Amino acid sequence: MKKLLLLLVFCLIARIAMSEELKSPNEKLVMKFSVQDGGIPSYELSYKGKKVIDLSRLGLEFIGEKPSFYDNFTIVNVKNATFDETWQPVWGETSDIRNHYNEMEVTLSQRETGRNMILRFRLFDDGLGFRYEFPTQDSLTYFVIKDELTQFAMTGDHIAFWIPGDYDTQEYDYTTSRLSEIRGLMKGAITPNSSQTSFSPTGVQTALMMKTNEGLYINIHEAALINYSCMHLNLDDKNFVFQSWLTPDANGTKGHLQAPCHTPWRTIIVSDDACDILASNLTLNLNEPCKIEDTSWIKPMKYVGVWWEMITGKSEWSYTDEVAGVKIGSTDFSKVKPHGRHGATTANVKRYIDFAAQHGFDGVLAEGWNIGWEDWFGLSKDFVFDFQTPYPDFDIEEIHRYAKCKGVKMIMHHETSSSVRNYERFMDDAYRLMNRYDYPAVKSGYVGNIIPRGEKHYSQWINNHYQYAIEKAAEYKIMVNAHEAVRPTGVCRTWPNLIGNESARGTEFQAFGGSKPNHTTILPFTRLIGGPMDYTPGAFENDISKYNPNNDSWVNTTLANQLSLYVTMSGPLQMACDLPETYEKYIDAFQFIKDVALDWDESKYIEAEPGEYITVARKAKDSDDWFVGSTNGEKGRNSIINFNFLEKNRTYIATIYSDNHDAHYKTNPQAYNIRKMQVTNKSKLSQYCAPGGGMAISICPKKDK
Amino acid sequence: MKKLLLLLVFCLIARIAMSEELKSPNEKLVMKFSVQDGGIPSYELSYKGKKVIDLSRLGLEFIGEKPSFYDNFTIVNVKNATFDETWQPVWGETSDIRNHYNEMEVTLSQRETGRNMILRFRLFDDGLGFRYEFPTQDSLTYFVIKDELTQFAMTGDHIAFWIPGDYDTQEYDYTTSRLSEIRGLMKGAITPNSSQTSFSPTGVQTALMMKTNEGLYINIHEAALINYSCMHLNLDDKNFVFQSWLTPDANGTKGHLQAPCHTPWRTIIVSDDACDILASNLTLNLNEPCKIEDTSWIKPMKYVGVWWEMITGKSEWSYTDEVAGVKIGSTDFSKVKPHGRHGATTANVKRYIDFAAQHGFDGVLAEGWNIGWEDWFGLSKDFVFDFQTPYPDFDIEEIHRYAKCKGVKMIMHHETSSSVRNYERFMDDAYRLMNRYDYPAVKSGYVGNIIPRGEKHYSQWINNHYQYAIEKAAEYKIMVNAHEAVRPTGVCRTWPNLIGNESARGTEFQAFGGSKPNHTTILPFTRLIGGPMDYTPGAFENDISKYNPNNDSWVNTTLANQLSLYVTMSGPLQMACDLPETYEKYIDAFQFIKDVALDWDESKYIEAEPGEYITVARKAKDSDDWFVGSTNGEKGRNSIINFNFLEKNRTYIATIYSDNHDAHYKTNPQAYNIRKMQVTNKSKLSQYCAPGGGMAISICPKKDK
Repeated sequence: MKKLLLLLVFCLIARIAMSEELKSPNEKLVMKFSVQDGGIPSYELSYKGKKVIDLSRLGLEFIGEKPSFYDNFTIVNVKNATFDETWQPVWGETSDIRNHYNEMEVTLSQRETGRNMILRFRLFDDGLGFRYEFPTQDSLTYFVIKDELTQFAMTGDHIAFWIPGDYDTQEYDYTTSRLSEIRGLMKGAITPNSSQTSFSPTGVQTALMMKTNEGLYINIHEAALINYSCMHLNLDDKNFVFQSWLTPDANGTKGHLQAPCHTPWRTIIVSDDACDILASNLTLNLNEPCKIEDTSWIKPMKYVGVWWEMITGKSEWSYTDEVAGVKIGSTDFSKVKPHGRHGATTANVKRYIDFAAQHGFDGVLAEGWNIGWEDWFGLSKDFVFDFQTPYPDFDIEEIHRYAKCKGVKMIMHHETSSSVRNYERFMDDAYRLMNRYDYPAVKSGYVGNIIPRGEKHYSQWINNHYQYAIEKAAEYKIMVNAHEAVRPTGVCRTWPNLIGNESARGTEFQAFGGSKPNHTTILPFTRLIGGPMDYTPGAFENDISKYNPNNDSWVNTTLANQLSLYVTMSGPLQMACDLPETYEKYIDAFQFIKDVALDWDESKYIEAEPGEYITVARKAKDSDDWFVGSTNGEKGRNSIINFNFLEKNRTYIATIYSDNHDAHYKTNPQAYNIRKMQVTNKSKLSQYCAPGGGMAISICPKKDK
Repeated sequence: MKKLLLLLVFCLIARIAMSEELKSPNEKLVMKFSVQDGGIPSYELSYKGKKVIDLSRLGLEFIGEKPSFYDNFTIVNVKNATFDETWQPVWGETSDIRNHYNEMEVTLSQRETGRNMILRFRLFDDGLGFRYEFPTQDSLTYFVIKDELTQFAMTGDHIAFWIPGDYDTQEYDYTTSRLSEIRGLMKGAITPNSSQTSFSPTGVQTALMMKTNEGLYINIHEAALINYSCMHLNLDDKNFVFQSWLTPDANGTKGHLQAPCHTPWRTIIVSDDACDILASNLTLNLNEPCKIEDTSWIKPMKYVGVWWEMITGKSEWSYTDEVAGVKIGSTDFSKVKPHGRHGATTANVKRYIDFAAQHGFDGVLAEGWNIGWEDWFGLSKDFVFDFQTPYPDFDIEEIHRYAKCKGVKMIMHHETSSSVRNYERFMDDAYRLMNRYDYPAVKSGYVGNIIPRGEKHYSQWINNHYQYAIEKAAEYKIMVNAHEAVRPTGVCRTWPNLIGNESARGTEFQAFGGSKPNHTTILPFTRLIGGPMDYTPGAFENDISKYNPNNDSWVNTTLANQLSLYVTMSGPLQMACDLPETYEKYIDAFQFIKDVALDWDESKYIEAEPGEYITVARKAKDSDDWFVGSTNGEKGRNSIINFNFLEKNRTYIATIYSDNHDAHYKTNPQAYNIRKMQVTNKSKLSQYCAPGGGMAISICPKKDK
């Protein structure tokens, strides 16, 4: 009798809704959720009446749990809600962020087991976020993910801006191609890296940027990647259907979960204007509010550092050639002969401190300060660094004293060589050392294969490590800039001490053979969707052989392009990567780097086309100054700027740093000019940007005489 | 020309010696080292002219390094040395230990690569130790072990006392069989365990005890297992040749090494008297001297604890039935209903403290004191315990106060559920908590599969964790008793705060269905070769159903046998595992446990036969009292004790705890009697020991009236 009643109830509920619709606040986006034959949860998404995502299934497959969570579902409840709130980030592109969405919470049940899953959809004006939630229930507490089966069915053979899916690196140049061309181009796209594990000929990474033939821009990524494996996308290139592809643990499992819990958000940002993709705050909005109570110690930083000279090969991280294998604790560096090419010497660091102080920079990074660099890489060395012991020629006490008296902060460097356990063992002491010597921020690195061996850079277990490092840093009031860590997914809203990440191909690759000239016209559409990047712009010298005759790399941008990046690739941490002596040669252009802000009240995206150009104007935080950046791709073009973002009835002085007409990233990259002009909110400017070029403008209100 | 000269030099050296002989100080043991055809290093060992180890090859195979280290060797140098030193352990079976050996250091070179390896042999009167050493050299710094190829060629189809080789557990009952029978018996020998990974039908663990038809006793183990993978033995059962079989990491590699370095010692203890095997200090002697400067805080402990009641199922580690999945930090135990079966309540712990104080015990263990036990096992749960937060009914402050005023120390418990990273993250705080509440020792546990997933209990990487825990504990002046950790190899000489290990099938299995009656007549020949065991003897109640009607286990020993274990299985940490109320029923027998010492000036092995019986007399440290234990196997027999170890011309009172004539482990285990008699060094005693029985004697000098 009870069973029969239950069946009746189920039938009734099942009749209530096999399909539900959700509209965005402005009603331009419509998401339809349905349960297909066999009880398969599915969704589709349209924008202004055009299909963005075709009918796509949702679900997960578990290990050893039958039935899995991808079919036999019935809708048992649907709840709708609206949310509208404006919040203030600790730092960011705007001082206020509106978080406005309509939400649908669909509770699904599997009749056979009585198990429940909730699908939560949040539809914003700029896109969709959804996630799987596993509420507390008797018959499901611990479970192991074999695969996540989320689909993103494309409506055609879109143009994609993609890098190869990989469990261990994101440092690839972008390929622009049709979806159908990915398979053929994959092999060539997989360039060498210090640690890499690709998994499929049609596997690509998120954030994935696409453009349809109808001019629709679609971006797929994830938000709030916490305690879960990082998602890639694998393409069924016959049907143009992407499916989620999680990074496995060493044993091949893709996630160990405990209810109540949920996955990260899967996000689809969509618009017919590429500027909207760049302006979207959807990723941040899907993260939890800030968990740090006192954020007064989190401060944007502009910095220089002992770094580019090692990247180019002019100097070295290591100290000696005499030690084939460092044994921390027994190798006595005071007894070995230095090779004389060590970059992080007290004298050289002081030179950078002087330069920073002179030009108003906040910080100085010194890589290679601590013992262990003689054999740090590629040897699967477990106890590789202690993050404590400086080389004999790096006087940490004296550098601390000197920096303090010059009003400059030192930035710590923790290369882990991906020996994650070793880093965790020393982490407290390492952070304490930073507190002792007043280092407010750390650049951490995860170069090479992960130890514990067999683990991957983006598995759930290792993602937990990156998060642990961020949260523990917050206890010590330390800001984190993690390189080679998992790509960001807006976690900096919750933990704003995460002021930067690399997680993509940064400027360093310009000294490793060069990146494509349009690289930085794609990154803001992909990598930066998740958070700011420590891209380290400011490479003024294109010919790397001038620093190191054995390095024939060429920086594939113009000098003006480098300036533009401080605005188009904005973040709270910005490096001027080149050498002091180089900046002194181009001191007029360097002025822009000195002037540009790191934190903003407003950001106006003026024009954008992925792979081609991006132009943005930003108003500095608590200031009337504006900065404009225009980053150009491989083709020369005129950038058209309408200054209508300026305050009415006010006159400003604009200083324009632009490419000369004969400038070219390859043949004439340093051909820039600087001019000043008066502008008002009625002014317009048409400015030529060279191939691989760009423009930067600083705008200050004209002072009354 | 240079090449030719080099070749000449090589030929000359090669002619110097293709075979070298080494004799033990008493010349009874002879080791012959040779380089066989193809440049294969080999050794053989004989005892009193009888072959112990037939010609056996030595070497290692590396990954990606050609040639590997198992052939193409030439001897380039042989050095001999003698060593004779007596040292004093912090605790142990004797107050002085003589470390006396002849050493041969053979330097081998591979012509092709110029690479060197040193084989260091130390021949003691009681056996051989040898290891591979990799000195600093240009062409070999970092290398990865694919396999170690050390052979131990037996001379015949010996009797072996073996447990299945396994990467994750040592908790097996012993099988006694001919070598040729191992394969057929393997399947039956692999009984279930919470984590287990066997690897070969003829794979067995060390320490492996054997007996030849000629009455020779041979024991193979390893010493000083530091930064290396734990060795098993795999038998070629056609030729009776064992080969080393290392425990792999998650990725299948068996060791990541950095020169200069060396392997652990491979040990062969040999004698025609089984007592010599038990008395051997070879394993300790092959370890480094103590590295702890101030050892005053390392003190042997006799303890009781809230433990056996959970093992039997009378009470539980957990606190509530209401929480299906604990989330540390968010599960609020003060708000859930306790199930009422929690063992580690303040009141119950106080009862044990009272009992300990009343009977002169040093410590009280309380397992299940901290939150997380509701779902700690078998769920691959990463954040499983915080080692910080007590259950609401365990008042850590009050228990600390109460224990202190009763003069009893609490023993901490850290079950890790094998979530090794999680333990390391909390380790400092956990040890600090112990310091704060004056816990001098910790029992740690590694039940279940290792996290990071894919790692094994005895791989190099995880062995490094156990060592890390010991060394870090020493910083906090904490003694460690690690359960389910890798089997000990004498490391307690170097780190005497390692006062105990489980690493074998302990008394708990008597409540999990029972162990073989002769189990403890084998353990001293196997598991205890590496160091003391926290075997937790003292189970007086054989019928476990009296504690828990759902548990029909039976303790397969007599009560007198339980007493004997405090002497035959001696160590600085000894539990009386049974319940206070049980001891109160047998308070006369309990007197022996109260009296018996934990640390010794002398130990005299009186009679021993693996699997049958062991009788030992030990003189308490800094005392004139002696204690005798005789542990018997499955057959009833008379133990013959000659008291000639006593001081001449002195009269002692011996209190003898023995089996009645009708005693039997199965049918009449509690049939014991206690009698006193006067003894001198001329006395002899023939005392019946029942099947699964034994005897214990305490001997005190007779006091003048």
